Amino acid sequence: MRSPHVLQRCFRTLALAALTSTSLLTASAAADEGMWLLTRPPTESLAQKYKVTLDPAWLERMQKSAVRFETGGSGSIVSPDGLVLTNHHVGSDVIDALGTKDRNLLEDGFLAKNRGEEIPCPDLELRVLWSIEDVTDTINAAVPANADPGAAYAARQRAVAELEKTSQDTTGLVSEVVTLFQGGRYHLYRSKRYTDVRLVFAPESSAAALGGDVDNFEFPRHALDMALFRIYEDGKPLQTPQHLVATPKGSKEGDLTFVFGHPGRTQRQLTADHLRFLRDHEGPTILDWLFRQEVELTAFAARDPAFKRQAESDLGGIANGRKARLGMLDALQDPTFFKAKVDAENRLMDEIAANPQLKSLGEGVIEQIADSIAAYLPFFEQHRIISDGRGASRHFRLARQLVRLLEEKAKPNAHRLPEYRDSNLASLELEIFSPAPIFAEVETEKMAIWLSTLARVLGGDHPLVLSTLAGKSPSARAAELISGTQVAKVDFRKRTAEGSRDALATSSDPMLALARDLDQLARSLQLRYENEVLGPQREAYARLAKARFAVQGDREAPDATFTLRLSYGPVRGYEENGSTVKPYSTMGEAFAKAAARGNAEPFNLPQRWLDRKEMIDLTTPYNFVGTADIIGGNSGSPVVNADGELIGLIFDGNIQSLSGDYAYEDTVARAVAVDIRGILESLRKIYDAGHLADEMQGVTKGR
Amino acid sequence: MRSPHVLQRCFRTLALAALTSTSLLTASAAADEGMWLLTRPPTESLAQKYKVTLDPAWLERMQKSAVRFETGGSGSIVSPDGLVLTNHHVGSDVIDALGTKDRNLLEDGFLAKNRGEEIPCPDLELRVLWSIEDVTDTINAAVPANADPGAAYAARQRAVAELEKTSQDTTGLVSEVVTLFQGGRYHLYRSKRYTDVRLVFAPESSAAALGGDVDNFEFPRHALDMALFRIYEDGKPLQTPQHLVATPKGSKEGDLTFVFGHPGRTQRQLTADHLRFLRDHEGPTILDWLFRQEVELTAFAARDPAFKRQAESDLGGIANGRKARLGMLDALQDPTFFKAKVDAENRLMDEIAANPQLKSLGEGVIEQIADSIAAYLPFFEQHRIISDGRGASRHFRLARQLVRLLEEKAKPNAHRLPEYRDSNLASLELEIFSPAPIFAEVETEKMAIWLSTLARVLGGDHPLVLSTLAGKSPSARAAELISGTQVAKVDFRKRTAEGSRDALATSSDPMLALARDLDQLARSLQLRYENEVLGPQREAYARLAKARFAVQGDREAPDATFTLRLSYGPVRGYEENGSTVKPYSTMGEAFAKAAARGNAEPFNLPQRWLDRKEMIDLTTPYNFVGTADIIGGNSGSPVVNADGELIGLIFDGNIQSLSGDYAYEDTVARAVAVDIRGILESLRKIYDAGHLADEMQGVTKGR
Repeated sequence: MRSPHVLQRCFRTLALAALTSTSLLTASAAADEGMWLLTRPPTESLAQKYKVTLDPAWLERMQKSAVRFETGGSGSIVSPDGLVLTNHHVGSDVIDALGTKDRNLLEDGFLAKNRGEEIPCPDLELRVLWSIEDVTDTINAAVPANADPGAAYAARQRAVAELEKTSQDTTGLVSEVVTLFQGGRYHLYRSKRYTDVRLVFAPESSAAALGGDVDNFEFPRHALDMALFRIYEDGKPLQTPQHLVATPKGSKEGDLTFVFGHPGRTQRQLTADHLRFLRDHEGPTILDWLFRQEVELTAFAARDPAFKRQAESDLGGIANGRKARLGMLDALQDPTFFKAKVDAENRLMDEIAANPQLKSLGEGVIEQIADSIAAYLPFFEQHRIISDGRGASRHFRLARQLVRLLEEKAKPNAHRLPEYRDSNLASLELEIFSPAPIFAEVETEKMAIWLSTLARVLGGDHPLVLSTLAGKSPSARAAELISGTQVAKVDFRKRTAEGSRDALATSSDPMLALARDLDQLARSLQLRYENEVLGPQREAYARLAKARFAVQGDREAPDATFTLRLSYGPVRGYEENGSTVKPYSTMGEAFAKAAARGNAEPFNLPQRWLDRKEMIDLTTPYNFVGTADIIGGNSGSPVVNADGELIGLIFDGNIQSLSGDYAYEDTVARAVAVDIRGILESLRKIYDAGHLADEMQGVTKGR
Repeated sequence: MRSPHVLQRCFRTLALAALTSTSLLTASAAADEGMWLLTRPPTESLAQKYKVTLDPAWLERMQKSAVRFETGGSGSIVSPDGLVLTNHHVGSDVIDALGTKDRNLLEDGFLAKNRGEEIPCPDLELRVLWSIEDVTDTINAAVPANADPGAAYAARQRAVAELEKTSQDTTGLVSEVVTLFQGGRYHLYRSKRYTDVRLVFAPESSAAALGGDVDNFEFPRHALDMALFRIYEDGKPLQTPQHLVATPKGSKEGDLTFVFGHPGRTQRQLTADHLRFLRDHEGPTILDWLFRQEVELTAFAARDPAFKRQAESDLGGIANGRKARLGMLDALQDPTFFKAKVDAENRLMDEIAANPQLKSLGEGVIEQIADSIAAYLPFFEQHRIISDGRGASRHFRLARQLVRLLEEKAKPNAHRLPEYRDSNLASLELEIFSPAPIFAEVETEKMAIWLSTLARVLGGDHPLVLSTLAGKSPSARAAELISGTQVAKVDFRKRTAEGSRDALATSSDPMLALARDLDQLARSLQLRYENEVLGPQREAYARLAKARFAVQGDREAPDATFTLRLSYGPVRGYEENGSTVKPYSTMGEAFAKAAARGNAEPFNLPQRWLDRKEMIDLTTPYNFVGTADIIGGNSGSPVVNADGELIGLIFDGNIQSLSGDYAYEDTVARAVAVDIRGILESLRKIYDAGHLADEMQGVTKGR
């Protein structure tokens, strides 16, 4: 499970378009809000509002057709032979890594003419959810009476580790305990894990993301943001009855749609004080870091065409995260939006206080969360930059993983950091030993930015800054570290991982040494975070959840957790700046838009498109919008109709939907999908991939 | 006089190139350090090291040939008919404002074929320094005994205002008291002011800034960063014997050169604690703001070609400031560089403490400055964002100026804010009533960024944030303010300025209302800054300067203050990454570089260049480097040889020179200039402007 930072990437699109914030307040309880657990689907609302009943077998088929990309996105199985549909941007890192110096699969696209040509992806892991079990009582029972919140957190972590290991050992399924309602519930999710995954088809990136950052989070949209992979098992295509079937009928305005996917994170159940922290501190700080990375990597990319390709993937993710987070900040900074959150909290707390049986549950909850935030403020930047360390270059990240791998493996399973538990080791090693190329130049830039940020956050005179910089400026030290380390070599990483802790403790590799030296502080900050911040928050939010269930029943879905959820809502346009945005775009409009911009980047349709324009039905619906409740991580989710037929592929939310991290809205916020008719038309008429279209429609089993 | 933020723009160029910081420590006292006052030229060093004596008449001619651009740059008079040479990037805002929808003078360039075609620049002000008087004693005498630092600061300000007014009234010259040595000296500068300035020649921006942000602050360089204006007096070209003459001989490696210009700001005499504040707080914070502006305005510019043109000028300045400040931060964050500053301070303080006559001067100085910084920390972001308000959109800036104009004019001259004193009113009104077009779309973006930053700095619940946002998100409120205000209309501004304070106090124009509402806090923050920060610093630095003079004599030049200075040093290459960088580039290399990048932006030479390639002597020296001590604000400065002949035009420093804000270095830090031979060759062979080349060489008086 990846961090929200990565999950933000599973969403692509205008930051400063006016957000009609007042509309956010009109969302009534009858709105189609919710990223629902498959164990608790929104049966009442669906029956009441749409006269639809969900059949358990239908739900099971949807569940077992849904795929989670461990790189941070969603997908679905769309043929009995394990064909997997997802977004181009979900697969783009993997696709890029399959290219060579002379063959740019990301830019030029790829089609396997037959199964023999499908390209294995050496470090891609997909999971399919197999079962769900509520283990709340077991987890909570592990907490000793009178444990303080930090100790309680640690006790729960150990219980989680044991449950996961036992489950994995007995079932052979990947087992993961998921924290719901910020600690109100714990569920054990068991999944099938697939690591033999092959690339089948990818369009050119200019077709997949026509309009680039300009169009990201916008609508109308004209993007073929799709890619096809195939799951293999025992060297053969996965055979499965649980899959979706594409329907060339597509959909029409007003049709009810369902979305099955893995929304990464929402923060709708946070208290107002917690949201203040996001608004005034964490949100702006993370944006600052993104701004710096975007500016410096863009300047780096402009220096040389080779650098541009090196930085492309990072820059795409950063620009996307920036646009998403700017939209989120604009919502939080809107006093009307914020007041609605405060009012809703006050109403809830009044209800709780007015109920003699709940009163004690609610007492002090708001204050405990406020205190945890006050405790976090003085070190949240240090914690984010040092304990996470993600932006510090792949070299540093690998070095840290190697250092920790050896240390953690020496401990009993239940006492390890979550990523290093037996239940996660296979996934982790797939990542550490990935043969994907690592480019020194771009990683040096990233390392320099990170070192400079470290010096800023700790202060230039901090002993750790002085030892880390070793008497050099951040840029000079970054160059020295990256040119001096061997962690970019898979062999070196394998040797180090197989070596002894002593050998690592005395290694003269400068990046290993740095990761080693920083790890004590990284771990102590994490521990402080768990004891002073996360532990107290879990405890308080668990109490709040209990009181909320008692007051409201479970009529609210939990915040998103990158686990499988069901959302629903009709295909529907909206009003923007006084005019109507129609729910469907067409393929013809894609050509018109590119022509209006002189087919110049990022509005450049591939030559193949221009050549085949005459062959295409330009009225084919291409992208569409609906009210289903989605968020980053939902990218690649299948959109199905009430019969379970595949009618679309989620790839974005519009700019107005960015406030959805904090509150659902359905007047103007929309999920954006590729229409199945655009997918089929493109495969057949542009890419000579009729066999894949046939396979998705269940017409043939493909070649 | 503009703020350092603007002055940073007078420099264009790689942020993360390794700075060989150790070399910074080798600069000995014999190095060519110093931006020297013309009243105290470096006669000893020049005589000793270069066997050169400066003749007073020669110095006077240099002084009266030097021109200050009030928009933040330097220039020189290069003909008896008032022709003025400066950088294209110094004049670019003015050149851009002279264009129309259909005529882009910035992109396409401009040549007046004769004087009748020269275009008046309605809001450009140039100044030529006429005399300098030391008024330290007068200013200090105005401070009552036992006044606290805040009161002392205010008393000096009143004395400054009176001196300036008296001088201006009696001499008719613009009079400005300049604070030197952070308060150690006060000089009264009297200047001639010219406001009838016309555009004579500008090359295409792609020729002026070949390589754009990629090449900015780099060498070898290939830029024709020049523009020609002409000063008019009484409707006729200024007639003056005090001017420079261009020599087609140019220079050669090792030749001693002199630079006369207006370096904006250096901070070499700040204490280590003060530098720590710049390193850990102010520097990174200002960079964060620049990063956000660059990212959001770049995204805005990509949305529409018209938006690109709107944002171009802001973006150029922001990218330049970002690259400069990143280089500065990289230097400050270099522990070796910083330690050298600390060691130098310790040596000085030891010398002072060891001298019984100076001991008391030095006592508590370091602590007083440290205390002033501690006092500033809690409000420096508020002070910068609210009292400055510069990034908030031109609409807001104009609204604030109108509000203050009416308020300040009602006060006695000596009690006004400096910009609003009688001695500055003419310049200010030139700015307020400038007819330059203002574009709503880009200004809305800027306003939204500023509002969001305000909310971040004050916190989203601050009453001023709530009143400023009026219940809307920053982006929605920005759109409302810009579309609702009339301040973009010159007529409206004139009417408002001529109206009553009462009328303004009740105006319903939303931007005027906002400026009015914010002004109380803006002023109180400024007052707090003067009382708690600047006042105590002035007092402490004045004492430190006195002690330093006593210990070292006046062998150090004062930090730069955007007043006329003389720097010197030979033409000289340097070593970088183990290879030699030759001091001269050639015009032929410009063609080679453009060809290597497919003549694609920002490496696109204009068609006119490509067409005339055969006519040009490709071996002509184009740009060159030397060791003269310069900084932002020196852009446009003439480079002359010991005979006073014009041999070049400063337009940049290399990336290694960016640490020059804090310490001079001459191993690898270099000033970058356009070679006079490249200028003359371009004028004659590419631009059919032989008459201007002749005029500069003194061959004819031009057409």
